[in-house]
Amino acid sequence: MEINGIAIDDTFAEGFPIKMARVLITAVTERWAIEAAREATGFGTSVIGCPAEAGIESIVSGEETPDGRPGVNILICNMGYKNLENSLLFRVGQCVLTAPTTSAFSGMPKAEKQFDTGRKLKFFGDGFEKQAEMYGKSVWTIPRMSGDFIVEQSFGAVDGIAGGNFLILAQNQSAGLMAAEAAVDAIGKVKGTITPFPGGVVASGSKVGSKYKFLKASTNTAFCTSLREDGVCTLSEDISSVFEIVINGVDKEAISAAMKAGINAACRVPGVLKISAANYDGKLGTHQFPLHVVLE
Amino acid sequence: MEINGIAIDDTFAEGFPIKMARVLITAVTERWAIEAAREATGFGTSVIGCPAEAGIESIVSGEETPDGRPGVNILICNMGYKNLENSLLFRVGQCVLTAPTTSAFSGMPKAEKQFDTGRKLKFFGDGFEKQAEMYGKSVWTIPRMSGDFIVEQSFGAVDGIAGGNFLILAQNQSAGLMAAEAAVDAIGKVKGTITPFPGGVVASGSKVGSKYKFLKASTNTAFCTSLREDGVCTLSEDISSVFEIVINGVDKEAISAAMKAGINAACRVPGVLKISAANYDGKLGTHQFPLHVVLE
Amino acid sequence: MEINGIAIDDTFAEGFPIKMARVLITAVTERWAIEAAREATGFGTSVIGCPAEAGIESIVSGEETPDGRPGVNILICNMGYKNLENSLLFRVGQCVLTAPTTSAFSGMPKAEKQFDTGRKLKFFGDGFEKQAEMYGKSVWTIPRMSGDFIVEQSFGAVDGIAGGNFLILAQNQSAGLMAAEAAVDAIGKVKGTITPFPGGVVASGSKVGSKYKFLKASTNTAFCTSLREDGVCTLSEDISSVFEIVINGVDKEAISAAMKAGINAACRVPGVLKISAANYDGKLGTHQFPLHVVLE
Amino acid sequence: MEINGIAIDDTFAEGFPIKMARVLITAVTERWAIEAAREATGFGTSVIGCPAEAGIESIVSGEETPDGRPGVNILICNMGYKNLENSLLFRVGQCVLTAPTTSAFSGMPKAEKQFDTGRKLKFFGDGFEKQAEMYGKSVWTIPRMSGDFIVEQSFGAVDGIAGGNFLILAQNQSAGLMAAEAAVDAIGKVKGTITPFPGGVVASGSKVGSKYKFLKASTNTAFCTSLREDGVCTLSEDISSVFEIVINGVDKEAISAAMKAGINAACRVPGVLKISAANYDGKLGTHQFPLHVVLE
Repeated sequence: MEINGIAIDDTFAEGFPIKMARVLITAVTERWAIEAAREATGFGTSVIGCPAEAGIESIVSGEETPDGRPGVNILICNMGYKNLENSLLFRVGQCVLTAPTTSAFSGMPKAEKQFDTGRKLKFFGDGFEKQAEMYGKSVWTIPRMSGDFIVEQSFGAVDGIAGGNFLILAQNQSAGLMAAEAAVDAIGKVKGTITPFPGGVVASGSKVGSKYKFLKASTNTAFCTSLREDGVCTLSEDISSVFEIVINGVDKEAISAAMKAGINAACRVPGVLKISAANYDGKLGTHQFPLHVVLE
Repeated sequence: MEINGIAIDDTFAEGFPIKMARVLITAVTERWAIEAAREATGFGTSVIGCPAEAGIESIVSGEETPDGRPGVNILICNMGYKNLENSLLFRVGQCVLTAPTTSAFSGMPKAEKQFDTGRKLKFFGDGFEKQAEMYGKSVWTIPRMSGDFIVEQSFGAVDGIAGGNFLILAQNQSAGLMAAEAAVDAIGKVKGTITPFPGGVVASGSKVGSKYKFLKASTNTAFCTSLREDGVCTLSEDISSVFEIVINGVDKEAISAAMKAGINAACRVPGVLKISAANYDGKLGTHQFPLHVVLE
Repeated sequence: MEINGIAIDDTFAEGFPIKMARVLITAVTERWAIEAAREATGFGTSVIGCPAEAGIESIVSGEETPDGRPGVNILICNMGYKNLENSLLFRVGQCVLTAPTTSAFSGMPKAEKQFDTGRKLKFFGDGFEKQAEMYGKSVWTIPRMSGDFIVEQSFGAVDGIAGGNFLILAQNQSAGLMAAEAAVDAIGKVKGTITPFPGGVVASGSKVGSKYKFLKASTNTAFCTSLREDGVCTLSEDISSVFEIVINGVDKEAISAAMKAGINAACRVPGVLKISAANYDGKLGTHQFPLHVVLE
Repeated sequence: MEINGIAIDDTFAEGFPIKMARVLITAVTERWAIEAAREATGFGTSVIGCPAEAGIESIVSGEETPDGRPGVNILICNMGYKNLENSLLFRVGQCVLTAPTTSAFSGMPKAEKQFDTGRKLKFFGDGFEKQAEMYGKSVWTIPRMSGDFIVEQSFGAVDGIAGGNFLILAQNQSAGLMAAEAAVDAIGKVKGTITPFPGGVVASGSKVGSKYKFLKASTNTAFCTSLREDGVCTLSEDISSVFEIVINGVDKEAISAAMKAGINAACRVPGVLKISAANYDGKLGTHQFPLHVVLE
């Protein structure tokens, strides 16, 4: 299979279940909603070493938000609902409540699983917080020096999927990165997905396990072109750099659509030689995304 | 005392000791160094609820970096060196090593306190990592799919100060925020300092303690103008919004310079009515920054 | 009439006919499409003193572009088709053909009026240019050092409208500007419109004519609050700053929708006191946009 | 000669004399100073088809500006002082005076050549403008709806140089563009210079003359790799894309420093194969910048 002359490996991406919540942050301007969203989703690339996985899902106009102000949807993901509730509490409390002019609404109001994050954050009001009905929602108004913080009482969460991915194999590092950027641009327009790594891009794809017993994941030696002389790199000679795009999404459809959009975008960038995907022979995850299927 | 017609309260900001390390991140372009820096400093507003306090200190050209590429200096702060070492390890490991084209160098090579962060990160190389001398530094070269990661063996850290601050009292929220932005712009040019909150601005200044026993900090009720009718707001009628700028810095001089630059900038924004500072009668911190002294 | 407690003047905006063309610029990444678009639409606020009026209309994903790459739609406007053709030729030739990785397509392929801009730009190829059918369009391939430039043979243009507008009257300059920014954010999502002034905002609203005979337009003295003591400012005492948002659009519906979105957004910003509109008693333009009608 | 293993051609860049003026734009925040600067420098890549060449020179803090607000220095360039005066008048009048919260100061107060641009712009005040001494400068205060515009009476201009340049020859388009971006980042930190093309990069380097008599410049066929089969491309087989960086500067030293910084930066980007420069055998310009000299 080829797209725009680029070979697509007949392999699959392997994802695994993760819990995720969507927070809709609104603010006086789009710029300030984005600032809050960036802070709230930072230090959130991988649950291997970060307290959560998080990213910006979409930017929405005032016509799509409860309070008529511009907004940003973020997704926060963690292993297990207990961890996710914690992440939600601390990330909204420390990075959204503290951000200029923001309000925070649940982006999954109909989810079965609900956390009372707003009710827990209300204590910051030191007794002056008030419960109210606004925009058809149950919210808390928490007094803030710069202007009150409106936060929804409950935040919904769902069973999502982490680890959707594809690999960009390129003639050189610059081409691979340019293609990765184009892919992240494209995925940014697919609802229900985030690319949690820095700038949406993974520079250091990994394999499960390591020769060091204390390490659960280590560099994907078979794809490290600097290890060619060591005999462990299995890539053909024309390839000198491999970037990975990792996608978390609310369901299989969202991840499939994101993979398709991202791969199509990457295949239009000069210097890209091949597209592949990372899997662990089914050992890690329960969800499989065959490239030739998602690209149909 | 007045600046540009704006009254400066005769009060002081109260800071407290914190440990901090500087990481110099370099990348192929300034844009990608910034992406890595943002991820590595996110979810880092306050140690009350974040795993660290962190921010971007400065952007530097290739003439100021070991490898001749553009770079970004970040400061990572935590209570105690043990916590800081942990933060350094996970934030560099999860957000810089994973970011496209990056290398990471110590920004405090001469500090007495040194962590062997590079030596701990090297295990990701799964045995193929190599120690080397580059740019007059001891570094590790860790194989990465997209291109090797260069990380310095040791990262230095110092006793710094957190909680330098000032308050912007404004006619309305918009004016306060515009002034806060101008202040953050100005502080961004002062070496040795960061403003760790979202976009550099604190929307929700707090006081020590709460009526709820389990809560160590709660909203600064005396400065919440929405609590005027409750009789707890002590601000004059013309003020309707208060933003706080919180500054962490490597020493007293850096914080003083940042406060001066920030206050001077804020006082040039229409709608600003007064500048004050947050303190806790000396109960919280050991460092005092009297506004009239730093502005001399 | 009020929105969110803000009074809406019972007046109308006055627009006038202008010719406009849409150019769809695609590039390797969204970022580079935007760079080209910015250069091509700069120095384009008002035909009073600029060689054209121009702005970014929308950003589109690869799914909406002929070549599957990210794109930016710009609108270029001028008085009369002859001037517009000139503007199109020079702005595409000097700012898009010269920009990295770009292609340029007509954004109004079905318009009755068509310019052969692509055929005129082809001469840059010095005889090596080639006509081709690509993506179902008639294009020219022009050799370029960095990679060939694809430009559509014909660019369509239509009778549009310039000068749609509204005024934001605010308690202080900062609040007015914050509201202007929120309005521009909102209008940015309305297809078929641009806000050609710097950052989308007019700081210097004008009236027709002047005491100086050689000047066709001069500052709108009745709305200059610094002229209160001179007795020419007609605004109430509580207002201290007035910003104007000027909108060009492909038709009345687009401008009306943009005015509505912009006013709704501005009315959610603290410190905004009133919304009005600029007109010249019908002397300047032939299109009237009554605020109370567009807001229905 | 080599830098970082990249061959540097033994050739020279050819520049030509141009007149240039520096305008220092200040505004309430850095962001708004940049918006004004972008509008004022747009449609300004080359005097071949643009009404001027223009770009952002540097961003400065409030400590370096007359009014203590953040600022942006722009350079506006044209052939002959008459054209330059015109460009200055229209670009400041249409793109800075119209921009939110801006003031405009001369960035070359000591230049021998002075234009009374401020005195010409004052008429917009319709008789309510006032001359004043502020910040040790002679300025005009022009009433503006959103807040008065302060503009310096005189703007200085000097004999500068256009057309400083170098060429980046790369393995593929993506690598060339990544290197071009790194080069533009680096040049952005060199005072006294601008890179006037879109995003600082020239995608379509040209040669003097054409087979079409009416065309003074056409594509640089010898460097177009898509013309290899036509036998006119003189580049070696490994090269597939060539970007040019064009630099205008206030003097030879500034351009030399910018070329050095830019080339050094480009040579650190993977996929760059060679650096060269564009000249016309001395037919076009009077200034020569030998690569091996500027890189010493």
